[in-house]
Amino acid sequence: MAARRIVKAVLVDLSGTLHIEDTAIPGAQAALKRLRNAPVVIRFVTNTTKECKRSLLERLRKLSFDLNEDEIFTSLTAARNLVEQRNARPMLLVDDGALHDFEGIVTHNPNAVVIGLAPEHFNYQTMNKAFRLALDGAPIIAIHKSRYYMKKDGLALGPGPFVTGLEYATGTKATVVGKPEKTFFLEALRSTGCHPEEAVMIGDDCRDDIGGAQNAGMLGILVKTGKYRSGDEDKINPAPYLTCDDFPQAVDYILKDML
Amino acid sequence: MAARRIVKAVLVDLSGTLHIEDTAIPGAQAALKRLRNAPVVIRFVTNTTKECKRSLLERLRKLSFDLNEDEIFTSLTAARNLVEQRNARPMLLVDDGALHDFEGIVTHNPNAVVIGLAPEHFNYQTMNKAFRLALDGAPIIAIHKSRYYMKKDGLALGPGPFVTGLEYATGTKATVVGKPEKTFFLEALRSTGCHPEEAVMIGDDCRDDIGGAQNAGMLGILVKTGKYRSGDEDKINPAPYLTCDDFPQAVDYILKDML
Repeated sequence: MAARRIVKAVLVDLSGTLHIEDTAIPGAQAALKRLRNAPVVIRFVTNTTKECKRSLLERLRKLSFDLNEDEIFTSLTAARNLVEQRNARPMLLVDDGALHDFEGIVTHNPNAVVIGLAPEHFNYQTMNKAFRLALDGAPIIAIHKSRYYMKKDGLALGPGPFVTGLEYATGTKATVVGKPEKTFFLEALRSTGCHPEEAVMIGDDCRDDIGGAQNAGMLGILVKTGKYRSGDEDKINPAPYLTCDDFPQAVDYILKDML
Repeated sequence: MAARRIVKAVLVDLSGTLHIEDTAIPGAQAALKRLRNAPVVIRFVTNTTKECKRSLLERLRKLSFDLNEDEIFTSLTAARNLVEQRNARPMLLVDDGALHDFEGIVTHNPNAVVIGLAPEHFNYQTMNKAFRLALDGAPIIAIHKSRYYMKKDGLALGPGPFVTGLEYATGTKATVVGKPEKTFFLEALRSTGCHPEEAVMIGDDCRDDIGGAQNAGMLGILVKTGKYRSGDEDKINPAPYLTCDDFPQAVDYILKDML
């Protein structure tokens, strides 16, 4: 374990860490309340490509979590920020449920491609349109590049394979904005006024949550809920700063030893 | 130029070498006749994923080329051969126009994925079905992996990006059967009874036709028609054995200097 640090910001993953689908992790709501009473800023960070912030917020509030929309930072937010920074007019190859997070963005006569998980748009004609734009020099901005995810009826393709296909066809590389990218974590932290050395990330995905955050200079606490599988700690080097049973245990550790 | 060899088999590419869409390369039919009068076996080799042999044959006969169905060896033939060798039951993710070349192949309860250019099947549901098969251990057999091709209204995605996407999602590698694979050229040559050192390949694609054939031990003659662009010769190492203006000039060189 590295030298003790004073934590001023806590980044918290959502799915797998606070809840699994429509069920909260036991004690997670109370643990979040305890964390709110401590002198730390909280941000909720997630790699969603299909749900806008508002929809995420509603789902979490139904599970009795206490959080605000402006505390949520998603890969869609990161994509929007990048589009605005570059003053780009994106073709939005994203799920219709994600469009809300791009309200106000100019999309006519597109000169960029933003691609997330968009099953209903992943057909040859639409992929070809994105391909031609990219060949003409439009940068490809990938919400994230995950290979697949778990659906109720089994594993299903994530956005990664479609991003990779466009990269192969055009001989270019997409700019990935979601976890585990370093810029994702730095962007999420920006509005807190804290430095990465003052932040800790709590999540269930060893590579994307913990590896990514630690690569950005933060500490990482891996929780053994959600997608965690025994031995995940060994997937990254350096190893997670700490591994806890669940979110409540991680919070208690922070309150006791990291403030 | 390497030492002189005696040529007994000539492999000829179709599109871009004998014809461009519905127009024959000037003098190509007569050149083919001259070649037929020489003591060489001829095979027509092409990377089609959309057209069955019969349809190719009809198109060429309409342009007054003299050839037989059993002289044509395509990437679809190569895929069928591999499926038969492995006794596999493929999910055929190919254009409906290519299905004829798989007649008699058992496809129920599939344990392999054959993937060509199939725009009407490249949707999320079908790609997901192929992905789940491959995750369960079904090998992916790719007709070829070309990035894109020229359509009348501009460049369009080839099968390569979709193959690459499945490879990325499953963490496996497809077996590619078309040009420029070494096995493609050796398979095409098999029925001629000739060795690779006795064969020459004529084509307009420096990498796929010439590089592939030379890698299989044949000689390669690049023609400056079809997709040829100035400087293509430098794309492969060793360079093409010879570069000619067109198919007739290549034939005349063979007749004069390679028999």
